[in-house]
This record gives sequence, structure tokens and C-alpha cells, in this order.
Amino acid sequence: MEFKASVNKLAQPLVQELINNADKLRVGVEKLANGCTMIDAGISVPGGLEAGRIIAEICMGGMGTVSINHSSYTTHWPLSVNVYSSNPVLACLGSQYAGWSLSHDKYYALGSGPARAMATKIKDDKQEPVEELYKELAYRDSHDATVLIIENDALPPVEIVDKIAAACQLDAAKLTIIVTPTSSLAGGVQVVSRVLEVSMHKAHALHFPLENIIDGSGSAPICPPHPKFVKAMGRTNDAILFAGQVHLFVKGSDEAAEKLANALPSSTSKDYGKPFAEIFKQYEYDFFKIDAMLFSPASVIVTAVESGKSFRAGKLDNTLLDLSFGA
Amino acid sequence: MEFKASVNKLAQPLVQELINNADKLRVGVEKLANGCTMIDAGISVPGGLEAGRIIAEICMGGMGTVSINHSSYTTHWPLSVNVYSSNPVLACLGSQYAGWSLSHDKYYALGSGPARAMATKIKDDKQEPVEELYKELAYRDSHDATVLIIENDALPPVEIVDKIAAACQLDAAKLTIIVTPTSSLAGGVQVVSRVLEVSMHKAHALHFPLENIIDGSGSAPICPPHPKFVKAMGRTNDAILFAGQVHLFVKGSDEAAEKLANALPSSTSKDYGKPFAEIFKQYEYDFFKIDAMLFSPASVIVTAVESGKSFRAGKLDNTLLDLSFGA
Amino acid sequence: MEFKASVNKLAQPLVQELINNADKLRVGVEKLANGCTMIDAGISVPGGLEAGRIIAEICMGGMGTVSINHSSYTTHWPLSVNVYSSNPVLACLGSQYAGWSLSHDKYYALGSGPARAMATKIKDDKQEPVEELYKELAYRDSHDATVLIIENDALPPVEIVDKIAAACQLDAAKLTIIVTPTSSLAGGVQVVSRVLEVSMHKAHALHFPLENIIDGSGSAPICPPHPKFVKAMGRTNDAILFAGQVHLFVKGSDEAAEKLANALPSSTSKDYGKPFAEIFKQYEYDFFKIDAMLFSPASVIVTAVESGKSFRAGKLDNTLLDLSFGA
Repeated sequence: MEFKASVNKLAQPLVQELINNADKLRVGVEKLANGCTMIDAGISVPGGLEAGRIIAEICMGGMGTVSINHSSYTTHWPLSVNVYSSNPVLACLGSQYAGWSLSHDKYYALGSGPARAMATKIKDDKQEPVEELYKELAYRDSHDATVLIIENDALPPVEIVDKIAAACQLDAAKLTIIVTPTSSLAGGVQVVSRVLEVSMHKAHALHFPLENIIDGSGSAPICPPHPKFVKAMGRTNDAILFAGQVHLFVKGSDEAAEKLANALPSSTSKDYGKPFAEIFKQYEYDFFKIDAMLFSPASVIVTAVESGKSFRAGKLDNTLLDLSFGA
Repeated sequence: MEFKASVNKLAQPLVQELINNADKLRVGVEKLANGCTMIDAGISVPGGLEAGRIIAEICMGGMGTVSINHSSYTTHWPLSVNVYSSNPVLACLGSQYAGWSLSHDKYYALGSGPARAMATKIKDDKQEPVEELYKELAYRDSHDATVLIIENDALPPVEIVDKIAAACQLDAAKLTIIVTPTSSLAGGVQVVSRVLEVSMHKAHALHFPLENIIDGSGSAPICPPHPKFVKAMGRTNDAILFAGQVHLFVKGSDEAAEKLANALPSSTSKDYGKPFAEIFKQYEYDFFKIDAMLFSPASVIVTAVESGKSFRAGKLDNTLLDLSFGA
Repeated sequence: MEFKASVNKLAQPLVQELINNADKLRVGVEKLANGCTMIDAGISVPGGLEAGRIIAEICMGGMGTVSINHSSYTTHWPLSVNVYSSNPVLACLGSQYAGWSLSHDKYYALGSGPARAMATKIKDDKQEPVEELYKELAYRDSHDATVLIIENDALPPVEIVDKIAAACQLDAAKLTIIVTPTSSLAGGVQVVSRVLEVSMHKAHALHFPLENIIDGSGSAPICPPHPKFVKAMGRTNDAILFAGQVHLFVKGSDEAAEKLANALPSSTSKDYGKPFAEIFKQYEYDFFKIDAMLFSPASVIVTAVESGKSFRAGKLDNTLLDLSFGA
């Protein structure tokens, strides 16, 4: 990666925006005994669309633009997010992806956002990134403050907070943790804003050379929240699977671009065809039994910038979207 | 109201933006003898779309996001506003609503925006809000500077300026008044941006518990201005009545959410069915004879977050919109 | 022009944003020996959509708003720009128009952006604007720093840099030059963002009184880049010619507004009807043989604010757009 922007440095002004406007955004800000700033974006507070939008930009390490508007792309769900980044691999995989597995007693969560790029463990007397992915990205970040986003219905116990701070080699006072429940509005917005990220993740799984992805943009409808976790999670996924749209710009051959376009849409997965909550139930709530290739946008355009050709595949499915969102 | 954000404090940076960019936005800024800053956004200056957009955000007490883009929602009117707020009751009713009746000699105007939340009168030796509405909202604001927006073709006389400052218990030097004519571009944008506010107002009139409204978003086409006041006002209303769209997120029962969705659209009013200017004429220009239930968006989605169900009612009417806008 | 905003002063914060975020935006920033800041936005660096968006706002002298979103206006090309300005004549003709012809040896380029409004030559012992257009606009700017945008595949030689600084009567250390190749993403975005500017230019060519244009907004799809210059340029033009959309607000008579609306669309040109690259080839790559009336949006609304009437002409052509973009 030629341009080594710091996702932590770029995210901090957005974290400050969230904190300074807590009253307006209706998020809770609490200073823990160990100094960590804990932000509740929907557990015991309303949170909301704008909090979710800012959190989505924090997730992307300050390297993406997320906006909310009304669109007439789907038949019934005008409220939408638009997401783009001039460095989608770094913004999405290097920061936004929920790749850091954290647990203590019964609390389990996946961490996403800038702290992942600083998280380090000791292995064979050497410092190693917590996630293997960073070796492939050849990216590590360091900064004097960091932030991690957790999608959960409860604040994490202090043991997890300490673990995160330690892994980032920072005092807990330099750490902000943002918690968004899946069933909250802010939670919904920040997950649906992963429409570009799931494309990066699937491109990686498909062994498309990440360094060839030069730009990307996406959109998806904001799902109505659901109080039950499985349904809520189902809807956040379905927003992307049935109505997510991305346009990627890639270097390399037409063959590689066309192959990527054809393989990317969610409809290529053997598990495609019903709301996510039903699939999850069918696999007895074992996330890892679900075809990993399902997690991708409905509709894809890949432009090969070296030839100028664009390849498109997949399509919006209003019927399945309505089935999931409960039109 | 749990989160007591100050609509006056949040609005001041936007007021400064308007003043600092007066040359770019083509608005007039004048300091009166009593120290009040008077902003002309379309009387003897061009004003424009962007001035209107900033004024709309000032109206919402800095608690809403207003953006302008081209949409293909209506057949003939691409230019549109998108409006959302994480606290629509406070942003819209606590600030944006034009609820402060001001008059002196022949000058009559309704004031909207943050100053309303500070305006106080002495009643039975006690300080009381000028508008009863604030008792229901259980919200009062105080700050060291304030701003009021007036929709009028003329600047207010100094007596009104002094009255506003006195009611806010501030020196006039701490007061900014922004005047937007209904027939100006900025005026049109700031009125059409009330698409979410009219929903809050009607929800209140329908006795929906305001504390149950947790978030909201809306869009509407920007109307072409008309030089005659009645037609200009007609178009600003019709933009919302025939093509306004809102998505509200509410707590409480499905029954209440469904009832709200069904009652909200403009088409439920007995006066719905022709351009507003005609209705106004039919009632001999007596505003208060018009069915109050008319003032609402064409199309509504209400999501009950406690069940995850969404209720929708009303629809876009391109024919009436074209009749009003003069396609 | 009543409001004499400084396009150079307004553009400088955007130039700083580009420089400060070079790592994030993947643009190259180099300080030349003569002190000039040279920004490469796509020659030996990726650049990208967001760099292009910021550069488009710099081109408009900080007087326009450019945003990127997904739209369903065209059949196949969701990624779009929205552009509006409260002073479109000054923003577009006084700054954004590529009117400054610069050459040295084999390097030839057209300069656009704020520096044009400062560029001066000595003629008959008097200082004169380099471009005659400024006399008609009755606008000249002066500021302590300036910026010029060049659409080219190579950085300009130092002789051109010195010429620009000298014409602006500034030390080269006060000059920033931004270079965007036509075949780059940033280059594509900044050209497509000229959808409003080409309307101003054609209105001028049609002798519509510029002082009567009070506001304007436009949108166009972002074209997929093409590695060959002629095809790349063809697509940036075709984005506007086949799918550009503007809404102008003008003073003056209905007759003048209607005449402008009818004359503005690209389809009124005798050269309309095939992708621009083919037309260019047909004229043996002599730009000046192409009908100047071709350069305009596909679809136009002109609202006459003194009567409230809107006039519309032209339409989107998805077939030609797909032919150009290579759907």
C-alpha cells in the first residue's frame, strides 16, 4: 500500500464530533474508571440515523464518505445510505471489517474499526497483528488514541476494555469504545454502510488482487430495526443482499474484472433466495455454516480502468427485500 | 426530554457560516442601530438554494441535516431536499415550527427557529414561554445569542426586533433575524424543508405521544418560486402535500403506529385534491378556515421499532404537483 | 456583479483539505524548486472519486457544492454527481471554465479554476485580463494565493508554472497547480461536474444576459474512465450530453427563458446523435470544427422567477449513454 494514511488519526475528529454532539445525537458518553470513553449508541439511549452515519465513517477509519438520502431505487424503502472511499481496501478491510474476536465469560463480540489496525499480540517473542489479514494488507497503524466499534446489545465488561487497550499498547484513557445494538437505528445504519466492505471481503475471498482495487462506491436501503436480534441482523444483511449496489474500479485484465463482477453478487451463493433470518435458523444459528459467498451486494458493476470496459452482474430483488423488511 | 441539547447553541455556528459567506451566498447582512444583525435572504438580494439550505438547518436548531440533490422520485421536478434529524420533535417543534406570532402596525409575521425556545413573557408575575407548545415539550433553552427566522417580503420594523430581544432576555446585539420571502429561492427551500416538521405537527395534533418519536427523515421537491405571494405559498405547501415523503421511527404499539401512518398523509384531509392556492382562495384567504389536517406529506412510512413492523399510507401525486408547479 | 466574493479566497481551504489529506485521497503533493505546490491527482497515483469531488469544488472557486451519490436516473449508471451554486455565473464562468490556454514547446493545456480570475497580461501599457470573458463578467479577483487546475496526462514544465505565477503577479510559492488526467477517476469527476458550467457557457454563447441567471443546479452520471484519451474525453462529454440535467432560475421575460430552455439541450446541435469520440474522429480531431452548441446537458428546466413559469426541453438518452460508456 503506497499511501499509508492513519485510520486512527483520521477517525479521531469524527469520534470527537460524536462526543461533542452527544446531546444532539442522543448517544450516551461515559468515562470508565480506567479512563476509557464508552459510547452507548442505542442500548439505553435512542441514538439514531445521524449517530449511525458518523459511526459508519468512524468504522471506515475516516477514509470514507457516508451520506443519507431518499432514493427511488427500491419500490418501498426510500431511506438509503451512500458510501464511497478513495481507498476501499484500507477503509473497509483495514478498518471497517468486524474481524477482531473478543470474549470474556459470556460476553462475545466482534470488534470493527481503527483499533484493529493497531491491535497486537506477542507470538514467539515477536509482536504480531491480532488478525492475520493485516499481513496480507501489509498495513499497520499507530497513533496516540484509538477507537473500536462493537455491535452488541450490552456494554463490554472492563476485562475486554483492558484487553483492547493492552493490545493497542495504549492507556485505556486513550481508547474509545462505541457500542451499537443490531436492533438500534444507529446499529442498522452502520451495518448497512458495510455494503462496500462486504464487496472487499468477498473480492479477497475470491483471491482478486486487492491492490488492483482503486476506488469504490455503494448504496443500500436503511433497514427498519427489529427488536429481535436474529430478525434485526437478518434485515441488516438483507438490505445489502437484496438491494445493495456497488461500483468498483479495478486495474488488471478484463478477464479478472469480469470474473469478479460475475462472482460478486449475493445471488451467486447457494444460500441465496430467502431472508437471512430464515437461512440462519435453517443452519441452527451457526453463522459459520452459512455460505460465506452470500455476504455481498445484490448488484455489481466492475469497471476495468485499463480497458475502460464495465462488467455488471446481479440485480435488485424488491420481493425478497419486502419479505425481509416486512413491507 | 432526556437529552437537553441547546438549539440556540447548535444554531450559532450555522448563523456565522451564513454571515461569513454572505458574498458567496448573496445574502444581505446589516447591523441595525440597536445592534441586531438583520439578514436579508431574498428581498433585495438574490439569495439562493444554498442560503435556503443553511437557513433550513438554522430553523432546525442545528439538529437536522438538510441536503440538496437531483432525484427521480417525481416525474418532472428533480431538484429536491432531504431532511433528517435524530431528534425530530425537538428540532422541528422545539425550533423549526413557525409558531411565534409577531405584529406591529401593519407588519405581521410568524417567527420560526431557535429564539422561540427562549421567548418568554411575564404572566401572573411568572415567566412563561410565549408559546404554550413548550409546556408540552417540557423544553426551554437559554444561550448567549439567538436567531429567529421570519418568512416575509419585508424586513421587520425595529419595534418587532426589540420585542424579540426583550422576550429572549438578550441585548438586541445578541440577536440575528433572517428574513426569507416566500417567493424567493431561499424561502422556498426553507419551507419545503419543513416536510418533517409538518409530520411532527400533525402527529401532535393527532395526539400521538411525541416522546415516542425517536427519529425521522423526509424529502420533497424544491418548488419553482412564484412572484405572487399566494401562488408562491401554494407551491411551497404543495411540494410537501403532493410529493413530500417521510419515514418515521416510533416506539409504542403497532396500533398507534398504524393509526399514525394512516392519518398522516395529506390525502386524508377533506381539503385535499387541488393546488393549495385554489383552496386558500376558496376560503377567501382565511388560513384558519383550511383543514389543519391538510398540512402533511403525501406519502408516509411509520416503523414501530418495538415490533419491527412498518406501516405505509398515502402516495405521490404527480398530476397535482404539475398543476401546482406549472409543468 | 453585486456580490464580489473572492473565488481564490474561497478555494484555498479546499486546496488545503486536498493537501492535508493527500495520503487518504491518494494524490501526490510535491513542492517544486520555485516553491509552487504541484498536485498530481491521477498521473502516477490513484487519485479517486473524492479527490475529484474536492477538485471540482476548487474549480468552482469554492462557490459550488458537489456531492456524489447513487441515483436511479439512468438505466445503468447509478454513480452520479450533483452540483449547485448560488452564483453559477461567477462559479462556473468566472472560475470553473477551462479558458486559459497555456503552452510551452509540446506541452499544451487549458487551465481552469480561480487563477483565471487573477491572470493578467500587459497590453498597451495597461493590465488586462488574459481572457476577454472577464470583461463581460466585470469580475477580477485578487488574493495572496491562487490555484489552477490542468486537465492533462503530464505535469506542466516549469516554464508554464512561472508563466502562471507571473500572470497572477504572485511568487510561485503562492501557487498550487492540480493536474487531473482525463482518463483518471478524479479527472472524470471534475469534468462531469461541469454539467452546470457548460450550461452557463452555452447561455453566454446564446447571448442570454448572464446577470439574469440567479441560481442553478445540475446532475450527471460519473463516467467509467477509459485509458485512451479520445475515448476518455468522449465519455466525460457524453455523461453531460446524454444524461446531464440542469435546472436554472432566471430573471427576465418568459420569452427569453423559454428560448434559453429550447436552445440549451445538446440535442439541438447538428452534431448530436453519436458518442463524442466518433464526432471528434469524424472532424479529424479538430476540436474547433465541432459545433460549439453541442456542449450542453441532455435535459433542461429553466424557471422564469418573474412569472413563476418553468420551461423544459431535451431528454435523457440511455441508448447513446450506454453506447459511449460501454454498458
